[in-house]
Amino acid sequence: MALIVQKYGGSSVADAESIKRVAKRIVDTRRAGHDVVVAVSAMGDTTDELLDLAAEVAPIPAPRELDMLLSSGERISMALLAMAIHSMGFEARSFTGSQAGMITDATHGAARIVDVTPVRLREALDEGAIVIVAGFQGFNRDTRDITTLGRGGSDTTAVALAAALDADVCEIYSDVDGIFTADPRVVPKARKLDRISSEEMLELAANGAKVLYIRAVEYARRHGVLIHARSTFSSSDGTLVIDSRRAELLAQGEHMEEPIVAGVATDLGQAKVTIIGVPDVPGKAAEIFKIVAKSGANVDMIVQNVSAAATGRTDISFTLPKSEASMALKALAGEQAGIGFESLVHDDQIGKLSVVGAGMRTHSGVSATLFEALSVAGVNIEMISTSEIRISVVVRGDELAEAARVVHTAYGLDGDADAVIHAGTGR
Amino acid sequence: MALIVQKYGGSSVADAESIKRVAKRIVDTRRAGHDVVVAVSAMGDTTDELLDLAAEVAPIPAPRELDMLLSSGERISMALLAMAIHSMGFEARSFTGSQAGMITDATHGAARIVDVTPVRLREALDEGAIVIVAGFQGFNRDTRDITTLGRGGSDTTAVALAAALDADVCEIYSDVDGIFTADPRVVPKARKLDRISSEEMLELAANGAKVLYIRAVEYARRHGVLIHARSTFSSSDGTLVIDSRRAELLAQGEHMEEPIVAGVATDLGQAKVTIIGVPDVPGKAAEIFKIVAKSGANVDMIVQNVSAAATGRTDISFTLPKSEASMALKALAGEQAGIGFESLVHDDQIGKLSVVGAGMRTHSGVSATLFEALSVAGVNIEMISTSEIRISVVVRGDELAEAARVVHTAYGLDGDADAVIHAGTGR
Repeated sequence: MALIVQKYGGSSVADAESIKRVAKRIVDTRRAGHDVVVAVSAMGDTTDELLDLAAEVAPIPAPRELDMLLSSGERISMALLAMAIHSMGFEARSFTGSQAGMITDATHGAARIVDVTPVRLREALDEGAIVIVAGFQGFNRDTRDITTLGRGGSDTTAVALAAALDADVCEIYSDVDGIFTADPRVVPKARKLDRISSEEMLELAANGAKVLYIRAVEYARRHGVLIHARSTFSSSDGTLVIDSRRAELLAQGEHMEEPIVAGVATDLGQAKVTIIGVPDVPGKAAEIFKIVAKSGANVDMIVQNVSAAATGRTDISFTLPKSEASMALKALAGEQAGIGFESLVHDDQIGKLSVVGAGMRTHSGVSATLFEALSVAGVNIEMISTSEIRISVVVRGDELAEAARVVHTAYGLDGDADAVIHAGTGR
Repeated sequence: MALIVQKYGGSSVADAESIKRVAKRIVDTRRAGHDVVVAVSAMGDTTDELLDLAAEVAPIPAPRELDMLLSSGERISMALLAMAIHSMGFEARSFTGSQAGMITDATHGAARIVDVTPVRLREALDEGAIVIVAGFQGFNRDTRDITTLGRGGSDTTAVALAAALDADVCEIYSDVDGIFTADPRVVPKARKLDRISSEEMLELAANGAKVLYIRAVEYARRHGVLIHARSTFSSSDGTLVIDSRRAELLAQGEHMEEPIVAGVATDLGQAKVTIIGVPDVPGKAAEIFKIVAKSGANVDMIVQNVSAAATGRTDISFTLPKSEASMALKALAGEQAGIGFESLVHDDQIGKLSVVGAGMRTHSGVSATLFEALSVAGVNIEMISTSEIRISVVVRGDELAEAARVVHTAYGLDGDADAVIHAGTGR
């Protein structure tokens, strides 16, 4: 008998029918002899609807009250799910974040988990009940107030519960079959991976893959939680996210070479800002990125052109999430005189392509394959950045899909058939 | 500076605009220098929508989970209300039933308040904040589970908070101006009462008046809480519900005679069940009403016909809420052989008219006025029951409105003008 933590997102519990389907899935797991703890998100678009209501009554809602408001969404879905399971003849009990012992700091809207004390969950499990926990929410001990964990919070709730309860596996359900070598909507020949190392998963998630949230993967890696990303609509296995050392051992045990590249990630959510005519003197770049950081924007890639000797000036480009571009531009424009640059250019028609693979550490020529494939396809590279196990390039946004397909083929990732895409809201 | 508890029902916070209007009203009270504690219901039809969802996922929802589900409704409204107040520049904090110290027994769906420990509310008030509390919900100490108080729960929450905080007044807001001598939709010449004694209010509420819930009035009477029933849509005074002794003293002080009749209540929500051919032997009535009580139905009026000597059999009629008739009928039908009656007749076309007044204790002839007025109007009386300060009669349902108007006139209750009825959902 194993202890299994399952997480179901908003699209998996969008209406009464979906809730009953999820309830059946949970009951099946229980029938197979396992203890089950479930973290559940708010139904469908509930959170967005509550945010709309908040915007109607207050231009800038008080953060404490916004958390109180948003946390009601999971109470609805978890109570309905517990009822549905109950009516199938199984004991089920729902718990709010605070009842589940999900202790966080006091940062409303983006609280960090500081402790998990699942005393009541253990009691309920010991009594044979299926446990349903509200995802996304916690509780601060000092203020005694309800908090929410921010984007991807329910994934993090599930992983944190799995760690605290020493669960055998944390199953994260969504409307896709697992982790793919690329987004199947962009690259039809993408293949589902049976397993991926957590460091590769982190790079993919950080660079546009949307199946798992970085924060949950990080938490899982730090606490040794085995994640199984799988589909609500299918009973077949998804993708196991395992720690890197274990991935290596597995590959050796199977006498297989670790694949060099695990997957290709694409991201159309970034914009590029170029600062033209920056005085080419020491300290200017530091000055600029201090201003950008202060504006709250998160810079991703940075490129500085070679200085034109005649003018003593250079151009600096950087990328950041589209939604953060306006605040960065505003902050920079306000400091134009101080920095002494000539003008600002904003470009939101870019696409970022990343190739991720732990094998890059030990294999040379990985980047050459990328550049050659893009060159043959006539795709121009505008920016490049690399990490130990990733190469990212910025290309024109309308060339991104084509670029992803040729690169996917070049690294030998193509599957035999086109990937099946389930209907769904895509989270 | 007074401490004022205010209660706003679902129709007062049905949408963003209504919430902002209520927020302004609360802020105005605060601006006048008072401490304010607010109990709020779920928005508009939220509770019914949640009940519908529950019915979709489970035929008989688990009571613990149903309470978890329903309690989310007030979290939404109270957080939105606190935000709206906050954005008007006033500090406001919302509290769930458990955060507010609303301790109940463990009866899910109809919990009784056993203690109120408003420690956090006092802290918030001391810090100058406006306090918003979720109506309708509480918390059981032993099970550590969330409970709900059942129908009229938010009124009870408000009164219980007023008692625990020793508030100067508990203002119950609705879409009517206060307590009327009759339902203005039935009797257009109904007058608003400036005050009413709590015992009269209890009789009116128990017999069909819908402005205040019996349970809240009872709680207020027991704990000496002054209720002020008033309208969300007007700033004029409503009706004070004061204890009976105080009502008498006030009347004496003003050298006024206490009015004999405070008001006329009408109720179309009852049905009549007649058991025909019951053996006229001792103990049969007890047997019958034990069966009815066991079915969960609440019997109101009972009439037994004089036995027909020839047959040794009699008919017994009783009234009960329409919604409870089918379970009572089913229970009785199942015991037909045991009781030995001939048949059951069900009549849901009845109306109940009640005349309530503390003056009935000391004045004779009150019932004669009622019977004469109905006789002149040609309204037939089917059943009669009385209490110390009330006379109720059952008439045909389609004659109830006419009966109420002639009785209202006969007791000299008519106002000079027709009462103004505000648009609203009638809560």
